[in-house]
Amino acid sequence: MKNIIVQKYGGSSVGNIQKIMNVAKKVISYKNKGFKVVVVVSALGDTTDELLELASGITDSPPERELDMLMATGEQVSVALLAMAIHKFGKEAISFTGAQVGIMTDSSHTKARIIDVNAQRIRRELEKGKIVIVAGFQGANIDQEITTLGRGGSDMTAVALAKVLKAKMCEIYTDVEGVFTTDPRVVKNARKLESLSYEEMLEMASLGAQVMQARSIEAAGKFNIPLHVRSSFSKKVGTYITKEVRAMEDVLVRGVTLNKDEAKVTVCGVPDKPGLAARIFEEIAGGNINVDMIIQNVSRKGFTDVSFTVVCGDLKKTLKLLESFVKKIKAKGVTFDKGIAKVSVVGIGMRSHSGVAAKMFKALAAKKINIGMISTSEIKISCVLRKDKGEEAVRALHKAFGLGR
Amino acid sequence: MKNIIVQKYGGSSVGNIQKIMNVAKKVISYKNKGFKVVVVVSALGDTTDELLELASGITDSPPERELDMLMATGEQVSVALLAMAIHKFGKEAISFTGAQVGIMTDSSHTKARIIDVNAQRIRRELEKGKIVIVAGFQGANIDQEITTLGRGGSDMTAVALAKVLKAKMCEIYTDVEGVFTTDPRVVKNARKLESLSYEEMLEMASLGAQVMQARSIEAAGKFNIPLHVRSSFSKKVGTYITKEVRAMEDVLVRGVTLNKDEAKVTVCGVPDKPGLAARIFEEIAGGNINVDMIIQNVSRKGFTDVSFTVVCGDLKKTLKLLESFVKKIKAKGVTFDKGIAKVSVVGIGMRSHSGVAAKMFKALAAKKINIGMISTSEIKISCVLRKDKGEEAVRALHKAFGLGR
Repeated sequence: MKNIIVQKYGGSSVGNIQKIMNVAKKVISYKNKGFKVVVVVSALGDTTDELLELASGITDSPPERELDMLMATGEQVSVALLAMAIHKFGKEAISFTGAQVGIMTDSSHTKARIIDVNAQRIRRELEKGKIVIVAGFQGANIDQEITTLGRGGSDMTAVALAKVLKAKMCEIYTDVEGVFTTDPRVVKNARKLESLSYEEMLEMASLGAQVMQARSIEAAGKFNIPLHVRSSFSKKVGTYITKEVRAMEDVLVRGVTLNKDEAKVTVCGVPDKPGLAARIFEEIAGGNINVDMIIQNVSRKGFTDVSFTVVCGDLKKTLKLLESFVKKIKAKGVTFDKGIAKVSVVGIGMRSHSGVAAKMFKALAAKKINIGMISTSEIKISCVLRKDKGEEAVRALHKAFGLGR
Repeated sequence: MKNIIVQKYGGSSVGNIQKIMNVAKKVISYKNKGFKVVVVVSALGDTTDELLELASGITDSPPERELDMLMATGEQVSVALLAMAIHKFGKEAISFTGAQVGIMTDSSHTKARIIDVNAQRIRRELEKGKIVIVAGFQGANIDQEITTLGRGGSDMTAVALAKVLKAKMCEIYTDVEGVFTTDPRVVKNARKLESLSYEEMLEMASLGAQVMQARSIEAAGKFNIPLHVRSSFSKKVGTYITKEVRAMEDVLVRGVTLNKDEAKVTVCGVPDKPGLAARIFEEIAGGNINVDMIIQNVSRKGFTDVSFTVVCGDLKKTLKLLESFVKKIKAKGVTFDKGIAKVSVVGIGMRSHSGVAAKMFKALAAKKINIGMISTSEIKISCVLRKDKGEEAVRALHKAFGLGR
């Protein structure tokens, strides 16, 4: 089928009835342009938090299967309402849950991964000329248990549908106008980027730009699905995310990101035996926890310290997992620090340029900001510093790399 | 499987977190007594109304398929929360949507009927020792479209599960202590009935006792499933609904009901040809509207008037259906009256006793209450009167038939 476009609208884009009506109009305008439109919708505004609050009124540790059962209702409400709004404006629309359109996932409740998408039902409805609306963030496992894809999972739904339907474009509608060189709330003259490579976007997003879920960008890159991150409240062009293009290479650093939602965990006094560090991270991965930066100091008297960062939400679970494990490997103990921020510079250009790290450290030093941990990849450099220094560091780096308007 | 009990908790029984916790405790107490417990839950308190309000913010006439998509989320929230509450108290529970446990319905959205129940999944979980929680009010058609069973549909879910699981008892938990001789808000000395036949309960409920959905009572009677209508807020025995038993026959009239939610519709000047009345009601039945009382006056000069009552919620649809039809059959027009109340006396005993009607009319006449329409069945007599006379009529009849404590 030709000319399919997938549009994803986040929770802030459907925060109330008026906004849902606006989304309906926007969707219809694409339908009128001749596109076959598949719409992925998140839960209305604060619904997700309200549902979580209901659950936490009952128990601190709800079974994850039941949590998914609960959370999946949020998107189901959105799709039904959006379908009604489109009907109200005289166009035919049909809404589906993730399970109904065959979004099959594994069984990792609350963090499920899509295994397969059988989009037959969607194709059939598109052929009938209908606008198809799919509940984001959710699927079902092989036993028809309802699963959810984790925070930001609606992006993954959109990318997966764009792939299987061979869509021309996957548009991610959000409450900002695109991806900026850094957070405009922190740096006033932050600039909207016209285009980014998947890799750059991945680093920008996973480091705290929070415009799009990292896993989804990765998937889009893997299958080369063109993304367009843009505002649901304007018609302005946003930021295109595509394969690396030549023009991008002229720029050294493309953006600066700040992440204050990580905590540092240190396993102290680990006996310096081969394979022990690996076992620590195996243990943590077993709990489905993503570790970000990892640092291992040189060993001293047969012992070493292993530090790493995890998102704050996973800290409790991480510490619990480590508790008994630390005894088993005869390490001395575990400490943690929630008072950190991670500041990063990102850009494909730094692949072929040296000196970015030096420039970064110098700019931070000039502001007397201490660096606690450093980690580097081909296209980014991250520094962990004290949380209260985070925003100052971002401003200094944004200026040092000449990113302003 | 032996010793299965089905318990249905209505919306008022799960109105808030505290009430959900109480339901969880009640369910567990039955599990501890050795029962295999299947719980059917309605949407939390006002959820249904809140969802309807969302929809009406968008459109007056939402597609019914989308309305079902929306409404079904209410029960899904309830079952997840109840499962969490039971886990919190240390018992294993698992929640399901209607579609997940194979409650297959026809495709009459918002008023679907159950065609089949494949309870394999429920049996499997009961065998594992789990408490099974099923979302009431909903199912899915053969295309896996979500359907709902109409107001009070959770009762039908409970009865259908009780049947297919061969349950010992189907308990209907509600916010009243059972079925009363009449509405205790209208008559202070109304009495709780110990037991009723299905037929009597059917008349009591469909005429306005509103404790249980009529279709569900009918189904329970058809399959001889013992019902127990009782309060979710106490341990007191409620009202048992079973097959007619000998002791019941001693009582002439068992209860008095009042229904203020019907409107009278009159098709005026219908040409007096055979089959025309039937066509009127075929037309209305085609719109899935239930007609209650029907009266046709003797014809005069080749024309007759046909009057009937429908629930107020169906009035608009009824008038719309009749609009063009009336022209087609060359009738003179349609009038309607929302200012009516229907008062009925119900009792299996009146089958073998004459004089009940006379006693009823006399009691009303003594209060100078005019009767507009009369309809009788084997076990009930109903009179339509002015709405503002309804409660006075109930009090008069309750006294006349000696139903008080």
